[in-house]
Amino acid sequence: MEEIIKRAYLESLDGRRFGDKKEEVEKIREKILSAKKIVVATNNQKKFNIIKDIISKICNATITMIDIDTRFADLTRVPALNKGLMALDTETADLVIARGRLGVPGSGSMLVILDGKGRILTASLSPSSIVHRENIEDRIKKEIIEALSRIGINLEKY
Amino acid sequence: MEEIIKRAYLESLDGRRFGDKKEEVEKIREKILSAKKIVVATNNQKKFNIIKDIISKICNATITMIDIDTRFADLTRVPALNKGLMALDTETADLVIARGRLGVPGSGSMLVILDGKGRILTASLSPSSIVHRENIEDRIKKEIIEALSRIGINLEKY
Amino acid sequence: MEEIIKRAYLESLDGRRFGDKKEEVEKIREKILSAKKIVVATNNQKKFNIIKDIISKICNATITMIDIDTRFADLTRVPALNKGLMALDTETADLVIARGRLGVPGSGSMLVILDGKGRILTASLSPSSIVHRENIEDRIKKEIIEALSRIGINLEKY
Amino acid sequence: MEEIIKRAYLESLDGRRFGDKKEEVEKIREKILSAKKIVVATNNQKKFNIIKDIISKICNATITMIDIDTRFADLTRVPALNKGLMALDTETADLVIARGRLGVPGSGSMLVILDGKGRILTASLSPSSIVHRENIEDRIKKEIIEALSRIGINLEKY
Repeated sequence: MEEIIKRAYLESLDGRRFGDKKEEVEKIREKILSAKKIVVATNNQKKFNIIKDIISKICNATITMIDIDTRFADLTRVPALNKGLMALDTETADLVIARGRLGVPGSGSMLVILDGKGRILTASLSPSSIVHRENIEDRIKKEIIEALSRIGINLEKY
Repeated sequence: MEEIIKRAYLESLDGRRFGDKKEEVEKIREKILSAKKIVVATNNQKKFNIIKDIISKICNATITMIDIDTRFADLTRVPALNKGLMALDTETADLVIARGRLGVPGSGSMLVILDGKGRILTASLSPSSIVHRENIEDRIKKEIIEALSRIGINLEKY
Repeated sequence: MEEIIKRAYLESLDGRRFGDKKEEVEKIREKILSAKKIVVATNNQKKFNIIKDIISKICNATITMIDIDTRFADLTRVPALNKGLMALDTETADLVIARGRLGVPGSGSMLVILDGKGRILTASLSPSSIVHRENIEDRIKKEIIEALSRIGINLEKY
Repeated sequence: MEEIIKRAYLESLDGRRFGDKKEEVEKIREKILSAKKIVVATNNQKKFNIIKDIISKICNATITMIDIDTRFADLTRVPALNKGLMALDTETADLVIARGRLGVPGSGSMLVILDGKGRILTASLSPSSIVHRENIEDRIKKEIIEALSRIGINLEKY
């Protein structure tokens, strides 16, 4: 991963970067599919189960939820990301999956997948429940499927 | 905005927060619709025009693009957000709209709308162009429409 | 401020930036000295009083402390900075002064002064109390004096 | 480290946290002293040599400098920290040492030591050169010595 990132950084510095490259998306996929230890940054058993069920189809990994209260991440600027960092900093994991508010109260939610250094691999967004009026379990399911599909991991294949 | 955020923070602290509230989403909408000065964090005239065309339908605002090279935001962890902060810190604006990479190279893109203090109001995501293989102009159009619709601003009404 | 930052950014882009400039430090001083509303991100009356006493000597400003519990910032990566952002996002202020942990538990503390957009104007650090074994009030006093002196505001003159 | 952080987070959540603890500072020291691969986030050979000379006295580690241009970190909100993250994301290392601007132009500089996950272990600050008017090599030397001493690593002992 480090080498691929360095190559991309050098391209940006030289002004010869024209969007994501095939090998970069492949590397992200590989990182996710080969994860051995995944932590889900939630205290909610139901939400955890939904995410675990889907992720177990594509990864042969130990998947656990964290045991510290994540709701205080809501007092930060990017709650979803800070939930993920809380998990990263208190656990050893190859991958962290976090779901929380995107930004200010009212801004809806984000599901985000981080690697073991806290780098964002992929994510997906949902509108405020006020706006979508959908069942939360269905929403999370869609979010995880979408986060994976935008980097080319299609669940139907698994 | 500050009062609404404080109320939400106190709810989280007390353990009586259950998702976004109607007045919060309304406040975000109001902030966007009443903006008088909007800066778009891009150096690309084409991308700027697409965003400007759509935003002018809903806001009676001066909309400008920034004149510093934003590509170096690509060397940060959340390029889209850092592009927005670059614009925020070098311009006076009620609203900043930025589009850039979501996370690591290969992670696709994010369009994000920030207020005058740099807080995230809404956003939308696209897969890597490698994955979506769509025209960039169409993509950006979809992104801005989606970012607005997830907080209840539907362009058809305008 | 925005213009000065833009100028500095353009210098960095062009590779002709050689350290801070006199007018930049002056602008920071001016921002601090002309503040009309300052919020201190602490819930501790004693710590607040120390900071208020010193700041009132140099600013003709309303100085208040925040009424939301800031200790949860300790679950983030840069607690001092996140305390400041909590204050910024729930109050209207020209200046925010925050004091909290620098980084991981054990990393000592930081006092940081932010402007109304959340940009860092100055700061100062203290070792862990384990290491310095000093009275906390004396420490905070030293920190605020040092944070100001590093941008050329010397309290003896006031 | 993860366990120590979790313990500290739980203390904060329960309202029974009263400052840094001895074992936490010890853990930071241990992390630094046992590092095997250290990256210095600078392109300047002179600055690198100063840092390397001092660090080699306390660590039995491979110490290298990065080969991507770090000056663009100056277009971010906390340049020193973002330089460190650039090094972290493009190299494999136990420790990253970065030096750069603290905040806005004019805010002086910060030297910061990050662990392999990007967490802040310690740091030190210098005023703007405009204010201190000291030799840059002497300054960096002082900074690295101070960053280490605030977590109880005193160079005289080595």
